[in-house]
Amino acid sequence: MSDAQENDLVLLVSPDNKRYIVRLSQGSIFHTHRGRIEHDSIIGGSLGQEIRSHLGHPFLALRPSIHDLLMNVKRNSAIVYPKEIGHILLSMNIGAGCRVVEAGTGSGALTAALAFAVKPTGRVYSYDVREAMSELAAKNLAALGLVDYVELKRRDIAEGFDETDVDALFLDVREPWDYLDQAREALESGGFFGAIVPTVNQVCSLVEGLDRHSFAAIEVCEILIRPYKPVSGRLRPFDRMVAHTGYLAFARPLLVPEDSSPGK
Amino acid sequence: MSDAQENDLVLLVSPDNKRYIVRLSQGSIFHTHRGRIEHDSIIGGSLGQEIRSHLGHPFLALRPSIHDLLMNVKRNSAIVYPKEIGHILLSMNIGAGCRVVEAGTGSGALTAALAFAVKPTGRVYSYDVREAMSELAAKNLAALGLVDYVELKRRDIAEGFDETDVDALFLDVREPWDYLDQAREALESGGFFGAIVPTVNQVCSLVEGLDRHSFAAIEVCEILIRPYKPVSGRLRPFDRMVAHTGYLAFARPLLVPEDSSPGK
Amino acid sequence: MSDAQENDLVLLVSPDNKRYIVRLSQGSIFHTHRGRIEHDSIIGGSLGQEIRSHLGHPFLALRPSIHDLLMNVKRNSAIVYPKEIGHILLSMNIGAGCRVVEAGTGSGALTAALAFAVKPTGRVYSYDVREAMSELAAKNLAALGLVDYVELKRRDIAEGFDETDVDALFLDVREPWDYLDQAREALESGGFFGAIVPTVNQVCSLVEGLDRHSFAAIEVCEILIRPYKPVSGRLRPFDRMVAHTGYLAFARPLLVPEDSSPGK
Amino acid sequence: MSDAQENDLVLLVSPDNKRYIVRLSQGSIFHTHRGRIEHDSIIGGSLGQEIRSHLGHPFLALRPSIHDLLMNVKRNSAIVYPKEIGHILLSMNIGAGCRVVEAGTGSGALTAALAFAVKPTGRVYSYDVREAMSELAAKNLAALGLVDYVELKRRDIAEGFDETDVDALFLDVREPWDYLDQAREALESGGFFGAIVPTVNQVCSLVEGLDRHSFAAIEVCEILIRPYKPVSGRLRPFDRMVAHTGYLAFARPLLVPEDSSPGK
Repeated sequence: MSDAQENDLVLLVSPDNKRYIVRLSQGSIFHTHRGRIEHDSIIGGSLGQEIRSHLGHPFLALRPSIHDLLMNVKRNSAIVYPKEIGHILLSMNIGAGCRVVEAGTGSGALTAALAFAVKPTGRVYSYDVREAMSELAAKNLAALGLVDYVELKRRDIAEGFDETDVDALFLDVREPWDYLDQAREALESGGFFGAIVPTVNQVCSLVEGLDRHSFAAIEVCEILIRPYKPVSGRLRPFDRMVAHTGYLAFARPLLVPEDSSPGK
Repeated sequence: MSDAQENDLVLLVSPDNKRYIVRLSQGSIFHTHRGRIEHDSIIGGSLGQEIRSHLGHPFLALRPSIHDLLMNVKRNSAIVYPKEIGHILLSMNIGAGCRVVEAGTGSGALTAALAFAVKPTGRVYSYDVREAMSELAAKNLAALGLVDYVELKRRDIAEGFDETDVDALFLDVREPWDYLDQAREALESGGFFGAIVPTVNQVCSLVEGLDRHSFAAIEVCEILIRPYKPVSGRLRPFDRMVAHTGYLAFARPLLVPEDSSPGK
Repeated sequence: MSDAQENDLVLLVSPDNKRYIVRLSQGSIFHTHRGRIEHDSIIGGSLGQEIRSHLGHPFLALRPSIHDLLMNVKRNSAIVYPKEIGHILLSMNIGAGCRVVEAGTGSGALTAALAFAVKPTGRVYSYDVREAMSELAAKNLAALGLVDYVELKRRDIAEGFDETDVDALFLDVREPWDYLDQAREALESGGFFGAIVPTVNQVCSLVEGLDRHSFAAIEVCEILIRPYKPVSGRLRPFDRMVAHTGYLAFARPLLVPEDSSPGK
Repeated sequence: MSDAQENDLVLLVSPDNKRYIVRLSQGSIFHTHRGRIEHDSIIGGSLGQEIRSHLGHPFLALRPSIHDLLMNVKRNSAIVYPKEIGHILLSMNIGAGCRVVEAGTGSGALTAALAFAVKPTGRVYSYDVREAMSELAAKNLAALGLVDYVELKRRDIAEGFDETDVDALFLDVREPWDYLDQAREALESGGFFGAIVPTVNQVCSLVEGLDRHSFAAIEVCEILIRPYKPVSGRLRPFDRMVAHTGYLAFARPLLVPEDSSPGK
């Protein structure tokens, strides 16, 4: 049974099912629309129980999942959402021990999920040219305890990646088709390439680029998640849902004979 | 760069984008609607390249992802699909080192994915009362090289699970609401409970059972994946898609005061 | 070419694509977040042109579609949405000349659509027991110029419908399965029965009731509409969409031999 | 109560829920996988009842809806599906009395639906350059009894439409953006323009063309219909569904000042 300790990240679920991530700190107070909760009332106790706010409202104190943590990451840009991430990890075969390259780092949500998947023996190499992004991601990864599995690099990926023969490489950048030569050089032959883009125009450009650069086994898809109100006598989907975050594309770089040069 | 070796599982992609998993074996021949491929033409060479069938059709020989392998598992029952599995892993916080209980084992598709996620230091305890299922799953896990991370148990889970304080427990059985007491006893307080059921009636019964057994933070959802034809000049979704495999439910067992008894 | 006249309903589309329905009235002013528009600047001019607010923002003045009008109906209850209505009309074969029974009237959105579809020679008989509803619907139908094709009846439908041998009958009530005998008596043999309900539990009860009352050819479905941002260089779905309004059910009452009595 | 007569179109629903449209003809026999049904056993009887095949299997004999008829139209090309048609009719305000232009005619499915909606006082002008299409559509419209409300024209629409000031105009052609000048000339100012195209590339070209030709209030969407197995104790969606038929686009041509020329 896990006891809550100083500095732990805890998931608090309000009576109306809102979810908050809180880092426990002695003497601190968490303020909600349903009253105040003293961290000290959680520290030292078991997780998995009800806590009352000073107004008497019951909150759940739980260990957060990586899904909860990702949804709560501090962001200053669009993030890759958990609904896409689960599919990315399985489709790109990312598990313990993998070496994975990612760009751009952004707020570090996908970076964190990749780190969670490759730990304890794998490694994530994450590139971003924007200083603010690297700093935010570093902060987020530290908060999640995943910083040991990641190397953050501030670099324009047009200059190429340092790594070679990596298992998987994922691009979350505006014009991924501009970096396919660099991606090929970093990936092992037949490795797993993936990307996410928000518009159909980008999908078209990316697929065209992949064709031209001898990537094969191209797949494009969308993931939709439809949540239901969990009321047994009146079960129904929520009224509204996220309709779109991005299109996922996957492909495999083919070994190219020495005398030919893809993308030229 | 990974060379293909005797006994490796290889993904062959046909010119019309059909996907086959083949275990390499010297002297063997793979028969397709586009001609024969000799295993010996793959063994010893790099993966990530084109292989010609004896009729001259180009096939890709690639390292399969866990996604490819799961879609190809030999089954004699419905399986949990990768589109659900990615979401299950993230939502139930299943990563390297986790101890996870699962029932029923079925064909072992989810078992394999759980093993992939908890390796090298975690462990999956998978229960099924049906002998045929345990045998098929054992075969499938061995084929995928994941058998070391799994304990298969032939047992009616009405009798309870052997494990306690596990991180996560997943039920893929017809009437999961009948086993919530047993699930509570296996899970650590606040641990991650999940289930999949195909009908809305089962969702209603399960949510009612979870409420009655002091599970909280209940979530119900569906995952839809919509694939596109990856043709840059004529991009469009495929005509048909999988509309339904099952509803996912997640919940967290609350610590119950000693003197009260949930579900009674 | 249609000129806008006093008392016409006009659709105004703002520069940020918000849609308003306005009834033209000399001397009136329409107030928007982008400035004021004098009705007199529209009256007498052609529809299909740009109008400037007093702050210089361009609005479109257009003839509204029945779709626009339905989305704008004054409501004090959930309405049946256009995405469902189009499918209802085709599936229940509702066209000019049909006699259609509906209950409950509610705010009259579906009533209006039915009237639009059966005019000029058909008729809609719409029942509601709630006085406020009948009054609101009467107002809405008058505003849309469709009141001539509708008979509004304030009545508890448990007492039955006045009409017999109608072509189609639609129930938008909480427990439609309670009125299937009454529906059978109003419908011609083999006529078109339809209903909408928001929860899966209601769908189950309705399907069970239909089976028991000798309705056949039962169909259940959901309609989803996914809107896109119409920007040619950055085409993508809107971020969020309506995920659920209701489940549609359709069925046909079978002729029952004289000596048997369905639902008993 | 409607009795089935010689030459009527009848919907037969098999025990396994397959749907057939049959034209009644004395002495004819309908052959199914569940045995033979003599037309004479239907003619003269009421619709809305069970008919037994010679093998004793129960079939339902019902009046078909326009939805049933459209799904059953003889086609030699892709058709616009009922799930789209319902939305088209409401969004383009197509009801009794409307004058509507359509191109291409194709197999006449949309043509039939438009005729159904504008009858008895409206008219559909449907263009197609392909002779085979016009002939097939004429046959289909005659079979549905809707031929009186339609003028079929064999013509390349690049040459323009004969009609002016029509209420609505719908394009189901490969490159609808090539005919926007012609569409403007046929439509009344502010009239209802619609189109359907299968690929995202076409949507982009169409939206770009609409912008350039002074069409406004542009809307783009997809319609999805998700059918459920209507079993009250085991309610669930069907395993597979139609994922895509086409993207719908709607717009309104703006009145353009005399001295400017759109699209030039």
